[in-house]
Amino acid sequence: MLLDGKLVSKEFEEKLKIKVASLVEKYHRPPSLVVILVGENPASMSYVKSKEKACKRVGINGKTLRLSVDIKEEELLKIIDKLNKDETVDGMIVQLPLPDHINKDKVLNKVFPEKDVDGLSLLNAGKLASRQKSLQPATPKGIMMLLDYYKIPIKGKHAVIVGASNLVGAPMARLLLYRDATVTVCHIHTKDLAFHTSEADILVVATGVINLVNGDMIKKGAVVVDVGINRLDGKIVGDVNFESCKDKASYITPVPGGVGPMTINALLHNVIEAFEEKYDR
Amino acid sequence: MLLDGKLVSKEFEEKLKIKVASLVEKYHRPPSLVVILVGENPASMSYVKSKEKACKRVGINGKTLRLSVDIKEEELLKIIDKLNKDETVDGMIVQLPLPDHINKDKVLNKVFPEKDVDGLSLLNAGKLASRQKSLQPATPKGIMMLLDYYKIPIKGKHAVIVGASNLVGAPMARLLLYRDATVTVCHIHTKDLAFHTSEADILVVATGVINLVNGDMIKKGAVVVDVGINRLDGKIVGDVNFESCKDKASYITPVPGGVGPMTINALLHNVIEAFEEKYDR
Repeated sequence: MLLDGKLVSKEFEEKLKIKVASLVEKYHRPPSLVVILVGENPASMSYVKSKEKACKRVGINGKTLRLSVDIKEEELLKIIDKLNKDETVDGMIVQLPLPDHINKDKVLNKVFPEKDVDGLSLLNAGKLASRQKSLQPATPKGIMMLLDYYKIPIKGKHAVIVGASNLVGAPMARLLLYRDATVTVCHIHTKDLAFHTSEADILVVATGVINLVNGDMIKKGAVVVDVGINRLDGKIVGDVNFESCKDKASYITPVPGGVGPMTINALLHNVIEAFEEKYDR
Repeated sequence: MLLDGKLVSKEFEEKLKIKVASLVEKYHRPPSLVVILVGENPASMSYVKSKEKACKRVGINGKTLRLSVDIKEEELLKIIDKLNKDETVDGMIVQLPLPDHINKDKVLNKVFPEKDVDGLSLLNAGKLASRQKSLQPATPKGIMMLLDYYKIPIKGKHAVIVGASNLVGAPMARLLLYRDATVTVCHIHTKDLAFHTSEADILVVATGVINLVNGDMIKKGAVVVDVGINRLDGKIVGDVNFESCKDKASYITPVPGGVGPMTINALLHNVIEAFEEKYDR
């Protein structure tokens, strides 16, 4: 069965639209998001476009700040500082990757934790690591929303995550652990990857390696979540060989149309969360 | 072969003694630690005593602040605030558990991150979760030091951790992951614990359940680290049945004399790290 992120995110968007309308009525302005885009990386430009459109669809005031690839780190930090202090900005994200001359950690950590709707600041990472309420990274959050939509049991299941990045793999491991899954994290140094993937009740693959996981490597009935977005012969493909897995898995995400739309949806949820937290303080 | 924490920590203490002496020469005072003890929990009192003695042995200026079990949260926070501002205090730890009327998270997070030598503040947890340099929780740090002393390979090995606490299991998983182990975290909701433990090249057990792991549950040649400190018939025992594991494991920690002394040693290292960072700023 397909874990249809496109369909689910559409349904969630309808609810968010109503939610945003009620917030506008109550607070006389919509939640707002500023996306900072440095340079003209084509993939980044396309992601940012999707985020803009999604904001528009649900009524969030989404803006993109397009900055030159040559911008100095100091200047970028000043811009973030200004947006931090701007009361009309609820959420802010810095689109990654950043050019090499800019210290990514320094920049991400400059964003006020309460506006950090990508959940990548140290304080939000620390809250997540300490099982406290926080703005959660959008991709793992979106995956949890997708699993929950399809009522996939998590407690006591063995979840295997391939990829250990700060952006997806590591926070994904935490979210599944907090829902009482037994969690294994694999990565490039894992010996015998197939041994581990074939034990997974829930398998999340986030590596950027095309066709890393095929049908021989999964357990019958597994839930397979493919986070990869790779370009192959002009097409978008994931990290999982969909054709060889689709009949063996009980549930599987398509690429595109699986995790991608859920990531954007989770981001919209975070913007609204940041907005509401602000007025609750 | 025994992972002899008592022996290794003694050897490390000799080095720390020399280090502290050189710091005193350079900065005209020793590093200092304040341990805050609320109430008279016997186990806590014994831990605090061990920390005091260890500080003394290496020349760290260690003090314990003994507070009444009835102290108000507000008062405790004020005391921490004062110690935060006190230039002569380099490290501070709040001995857990705290009485029920005190919000543990609030208290731990009040300690300045640069003095948080237990590594439990949100910022230090966030740095650890984001693979940045931080003051690391003493128990997992001490275990890494012990494994490294015995030159136990970690990269590419399958490490299985039983227990997912913020204090030990969760940060242990991160430290092993950052050293490129494949890491599985098990806990009370894990189905078929023996299946997972028997796959471990490196097994870390931190649950507080006496005899949870026995020889039938481990792989031949496994490295077994027992974090448990339990009292049974007036004796201190771990979470691992030592007798049934000792011939099957390649390395195993005794209890007591394994992880315990390494935890205290790691804490001493953290105090010195905090002291040096201060003068480096």
